[in-house]
Amino acid sequence: MSGTNRQIRLARRPVGELQPEDWAHVTEPAEAPGEGRFAGRTRYISLDPAMRGWLDDRPSYLPPVGLGEVMRAGSVIEVTESDHPGFRPGDHVVGTFGVQEYVISDGRGTLKVDPARAPLSTYLGALGMPGMTAYFGLLDVGALKEGETVVVSGAAGAVGSLVGQIAKIKGCRVIGIAGGPDKCAVLTDELGFDAAIDYRAEDVRKALRTHAPDGIDVYFDNVGGEILEAALGRLAMRARVVICGAISQYNNETAVHGPANYLSLLVRRARMEGFVVFDYSARYGEAAREIAGWIAEGRIKVLEHVVKGGVDDFPATLGMLFRGENTGKLVLDLT
Amino acid sequence: MSGTNRQIRLARRPVGELQPEDWAHVTEPAEAPGEGRFAGRTRYISLDPAMRGWLDDRPSYLPPVGLGEVMRAGSVIEVTESDHPGFRPGDHVVGTFGVQEYVISDGRGTLKVDPARAPLSTYLGALGMPGMTAYFGLLDVGALKEGETVVVSGAAGAVGSLVGQIAKIKGCRVIGIAGGPDKCAVLTDELGFDAAIDYRAEDVRKALRTHAPDGIDVYFDNVGGEILEAALGRLAMRARVVICGAISQYNNETAVHGPANYLSLLVRRARMEGFVVFDYSARYGEAAREIAGWIAEGRIKVLEHVVKGGVDDFPATLGMLFRGENTGKLVLDLT
Repeated sequence: MSGTNRQIRLARRPVGELQPEDWAHVTEPAEAPGEGRFAGRTRYISLDPAMRGWLDDRPSYLPPVGLGEVMRAGSVIEVTESDHPGFRPGDHVVGTFGVQEYVISDGRGTLKVDPARAPLSTYLGALGMPGMTAYFGLLDVGALKEGETVVVSGAAGAVGSLVGQIAKIKGCRVIGIAGGPDKCAVLTDELGFDAAIDYRAEDVRKALRTHAPDGIDVYFDNVGGEILEAALGRLAMRARVVICGAISQYNNETAVHGPANYLSLLVRRARMEGFVVFDYSARYGEAAREIAGWIAEGRIKVLEHVVKGGVDDFPATLGMLFRGENTGKLVLDLT
Repeated sequence: MSGTNRQIRLARRPVGELQPEDWAHVTEPAEAPGEGRFAGRTRYISLDPAMRGWLDDRPSYLPPVGLGEVMRAGSVIEVTESDHPGFRPGDHVVGTFGVQEYVISDGRGTLKVDPARAPLSTYLGALGMPGMTAYFGLLDVGALKEGETVVVSGAAGAVGSLVGQIAKIKGCRVIGIAGGPDKCAVLTDELGFDAAIDYRAEDVRKALRTHAPDGIDVYFDNVGGEILEAALGRLAMRARVVICGAISQYNNETAVHGPANYLSLLVRRARMEGFVVFDYSARYGEAAREIAGWIAEGRIKVLEHVVKGGVDDFPATLGMLFRGENTGKLVLDLT
């Protein structure tokens, strides 16, 4: 093996919105994998809202990315060279390999995937973390029941688009909240949502009154802020609020906007619960099989927003995510 | 039956802190009960934080008290005259009879109580709504387990003092948050709490770090505001936050202060759940029997703050509650 490895490393801790100067673009030599390891070339890199939180020097469910470290990211790689009995050149592997062109791994925490069964990018989306997040967040944390009314924010995103479609499969009424008429049209026209609310153009509180006249049974929150408050104001009795993320708050320089009407949890005997998908890793197989079945049956449409480029395009592509410019799962395609 | 009935009625909707002008003091004739009803004289009136919420013209778990209506309150009365087969003169009855000296009832939603088994005021406290609230909030909503760390705010109040003592009985480590050194001394010296934090004198965040080094498993919140935030910042994995009330916020003229760090629910895989004790009415008997047993065994000390007076003292006594001037259950004693 010879050649180079282009990498994106964290140069400084961002304050508020991400800036180009937060990143270092570095070229390193690409070393041989060594015994018990394999090397590979990155094919697809996942871009996720959670990445913003990993950049802050603050205790969370994962340690922060260290200054000077390769940016953490999930990706699909193709094995080019292996001294590991479980991996052969040509194998495709998913793992948290970071934003770099070339990867060396001992195989721990990785998963071989089959490009014949699904497009490789799908293993970063519907069959990857966003799929697992939607599945366990909605069905396990949200304890969804047939016939309930489900509202999901960030509904045109990687997780939200799956949450809504799974809720429809489970016989629920589904209302999606997204930004802009194009995204809203995708939700109702392509993904089968019962209604979509454009939070940029509509009064979300009023729209929820219209579309969820009997209240919300499960609110799956990806955004936080005022949309969370609007949903809390419209809960049905014994509602479940699933806290998956809060993308509206991640770039805040001031304090996060907490839900001033959280006492609606008391009035409506409701609960608000957070989760981290990694806790469900023992059950990923179960979820992936079921989601793959739904995709095969045409009951789930995979929404992906693929940006062709190299690792150097990672910072700009990540910015798209926080400006809400993606519809569906955002991936960087290095092929 | 003849005589008069002194009553406290809601004269206007309060804005912010309660004012004397919010109330009308009225004298009505005391009428005969009529067929199927009984009449009685009020002995003890309960004063509860929830009362503030009942005064706002806003949908909640109970309809607001109407303008001109007798103020809603739980009380213990003694039957003076009865045309109801189930009640005889001399019987003591608990019910939501309102802030008035004289009561007529058809018996629905009431409970006969025995002054030989417990002092009458106890039926408004440890054996009444506060007892039920502490019991079901902690054990059912909080799903308390032996050996866990429990933090309760408003710990020297009617509900909080019972929450802490029940948690001790269940083998937990208990930290109470209260205002002032006297209340804190009561918690640790008389009620057996493991630690008490005086929120007026101490940095609650720091104190929680000291007293709950491994995090909080169950946080029982009676106060809201900054203390709720401090507790959210110190949750153990899979913690339960029980939302019972938010007395710090009830008199707010501005928006309620929502917990800016609610995303700790995500990081700690925790849940925050509200409840209303009335939902447990079918199980009140079970709870009252168990609490009565603990009182008899000396494992629960009943803390009461009894104000002697008449219904005209109701407004001033209610003010004590929101200024935190009571230790234990606040009752107005008309005997």
